[in-house]
Amino acid sequence: MSTFLSPKRTIAELEELRRLTGDENGAQRVAFTKNWSAARSFLRGKLQSLPVEIHPDAAGNLWATMKGASPRELLIGGHIDSVPNGGWLDGCLNTLAAVEILRRIDAQYQGRPPVTVRLVDWADEEGARFGKSLFGSSACSGNLDLDEARRLTDADGIRLPDALKGIGVEFERVKESGGELKNAAAYLELHIEQGPVLLDLDLPLGVVLGTYGVERHAVTFFGQAAHSGSTPMNRRKDAFLAASRMGLEIYQIAEMYGGVCTIGSCTTKPGIVTSVVEECRITLDQRHLDSTALANMLHAAKEASERFAREGNVKVSWDRLWQIEPVLFASELVSLCDSAIVDTYGRSYRMPSGPLHDAAEVARAGVPTVMMFVQSLLGISHNKIEDTKRDHLELSIVAFDNLVEKTIKWIIAQQP
Amino acid sequence: MSTFLSPKRTIAELEELRRLTGDENGAQRVAFTKNWSAARSFLRGKLQSLPVEIHPDAAGNLWATMKGASPRELLIGGHIDSVPNGGWLDGCLNTLAAVEILRRIDAQYQGRPPVTVRLVDWADEEGARFGKSLFGSSACSGNLDLDEARRLTDADGIRLPDALKGIGVEFERVKESGGELKNAAAYLELHIEQGPVLLDLDLPLGVVLGTYGVERHAVTFFGQAAHSGSTPMNRRKDAFLAASRMGLEIYQIAEMYGGVCTIGSCTTKPGIVTSVVEECRITLDQRHLDSTALANMLHAAKEASERFAREGNVKVSWDRLWQIEPVLFASELVSLCDSAIVDTYGRSYRMPSGPLHDAAEVARAGVPTVMMFVQSLLGISHNKIEDTKRDHLELSIVAFDNLVEKTIKWIIAQQP
Repeated sequence: MSTFLSPKRTIAELEELRRLTGDENGAQRVAFTKNWSAARSFLRGKLQSLPVEIHPDAAGNLWATMKGASPRELLIGGHIDSVPNGGWLDGCLNTLAAVEILRRIDAQYQGRPPVTVRLVDWADEEGARFGKSLFGSSACSGNLDLDEARRLTDADGIRLPDALKGIGVEFERVKESGGELKNAAAYLELHIEQGPVLLDLDLPLGVVLGTYGVERHAVTFFGQAAHSGSTPMNRRKDAFLAASRMGLEIYQIAEMYGGVCTIGSCTTKPGIVTSVVEECRITLDQRHLDSTALANMLHAAKEASERFAREGNVKVSWDRLWQIEPVLFASELVSLCDSAIVDTYGRSYRMPSGPLHDAAEVARAGVPTVMMFVQSLLGISHNKIEDTKRDHLELSIVAFDNLVEKTIKWIIAQQP
Repeated sequence: MSTFLSPKRTIAELEELRRLTGDENGAQRVAFTKNWSAARSFLRGKLQSLPVEIHPDAAGNLWATMKGASPRELLIGGHIDSVPNGGWLDGCLNTLAAVEILRRIDAQYQGRPPVTVRLVDWADEEGARFGKSLFGSSACSGNLDLDEARRLTDADGIRLPDALKGIGVEFERVKESGGELKNAAAYLELHIEQGPVLLDLDLPLGVVLGTYGVERHAVTFFGQAAHSGSTPMNRRKDAFLAASRMGLEIYQIAEMYGGVCTIGSCTTKPGIVTSVVEECRITLDQRHLDSTALANMLHAAKEASERFAREGNVKVSWDRLWQIEPVLFASELVSLCDSAIVDTYGRSYRMPSGPLHDAAEVARAGVPTVMMFVQSLLGISHNKIEDTKRDHLELSIVAFDNLVEKTIKWIIAQQP
């Protein structure tokens, strides 16, 4: 570990941010709110003693740039926003770890690192207020669907473009933020795992291979309402029976193809105790790191639903809610991340990320990218009980700093 | 068929009532509304040329009494109320068939039948407005839970006691209606089947053996919310998976014990596409004509739910919503009804009733009771498409009149 690095200071600053912007229900740093602005002011405060130029881009992402000998840039990204009643680490771990790493770089290279190093705090990763995650990074990558985003409103009916105006962002120009990536040579992101994989393996750190592709559908079975007392079982057109069979089937499908499948909601009509269910709508979320396997999982689910519909004398319809292709991280950076973890802890583990992250958007923009995960206690996030052991947090900052140094060298080696 | 009986007139009167109190969405005779009062005025109008004494009882049931040589009474019951957007036959078929039968009796016996014959129009069989069915008949039988009924309100917040005041019924005295049964020797009710059993057998008429007992529960599985992307399948505590297994299991249980089981509603929390279901509540309605079999069905469902909970690492809790014991009709009247159907059509069929009927309340009050069912087209009711073939309606009125005559003789034979 570099003698200039103080992981304990980062943990103290995370605690400080928690006190400043959280309450008894957890972190309250929803993007585009007062608390979020307070968190950003806190971040700017931590950066002000460093030789960095700070500015927000056209999408409201905040950039702190430490000029290096080469104009080629290493980006270190995080997000300081949280869900309502969120955890204390989700997103801001990396934002504050990056501050510490900039301090180390400043000290080690006397303010003039071999490559330019930039911290980016993405705007609205969580999408908690407008229901659309990865706003700032997808604007920057160019993948944001402007027509869709233009129509988004929060629970009070405030439109996203109007909320952005309040922080000085002009909606129609958000994609101009893409210019920030023109010299980007690599993007690194440290994040808590938000799942139990490292916990179950009893490992503190993992290399992320990429983010799962997602196929998200509403599946609706249409049967016939019928009196619960007067309708013999063999005469029923029971939409809930078909949905129930899907409830079991998705476990078979996930086992066969190695991804994950989730039925997250179920609604029934007429939904009364004395009637067979006429209409049953379930949502199905399927994820896989391999796009062919993801397509196969979707195909298997469709086929099963049609079989259950046929056998249960009901009809079925599918509506796509959302989809995204799997995003694979840069294999050379995956190797560097692996080495950094082995250097720090002795053992590493390669794993996909189930949740999406800003890193996926940066990778989609063509910037070589990798993420590092640190174990989540209980495997829980988006909750005030979200936590990570203090020694794991320290290890993660040390290993991530090691990865930063390896990546600086890799960028230099890449130069023509 | 008695030459004094005109089933076609009853059908014409049913059509007349439909025009008077229905609209393009179906019958609109919800109890304690203006349309219901209009339907009752129509009924009184049809009765006024007959030598009957008419009065409402303390629960708002309407009685028309034709005094006979014996004070012992044959009761013929129906209900003129409907659900909103209901069918044209549910309930009122028998109310108007009873009018025709009173005409026949008046003509045949010159206004002095061997026993007293009474038509009763039960108040609020459907429970459509206050959510509690069999109001008038359960007040009369004494089974009405006054404390529960006192608290009932309609969608506009109007309390049942206040709605009753509007039709001249004093809530605290409704059980005084029980006095109406003191001379009752038998109770007969003709009703549409509301299910597809007679349709499937291609039979117009059936004898009802009794009404199913009902066990009605809310079953809630408690798992753990977890991210749909980051939570491996084998780490999930998926409340929907356990509920799904119940969705299949109830078909096994119904097949094993011979009753019916229905999951009529399913709700999920948090109920979002990106989370494993933490809490899943289903309603389970189980019915059987045999009380031991019903208890066994309930036991089997509980045991299965506990097994699914254990195997899925979730918890389960059961809350009873409602229950009623099976009600068996009087075996001698069942035989008479069988004979009346055979006399009329040549073939009869004995069957339980899945739905409850006022007849169950009268039977519970100790009055020998039987019901006759006439086939429902499509097996559908509580819907504007509810219908029965005209020739089946005519057959039902003829057979029911035959049963009335047989029952009059049976009552006389019973006299000490």
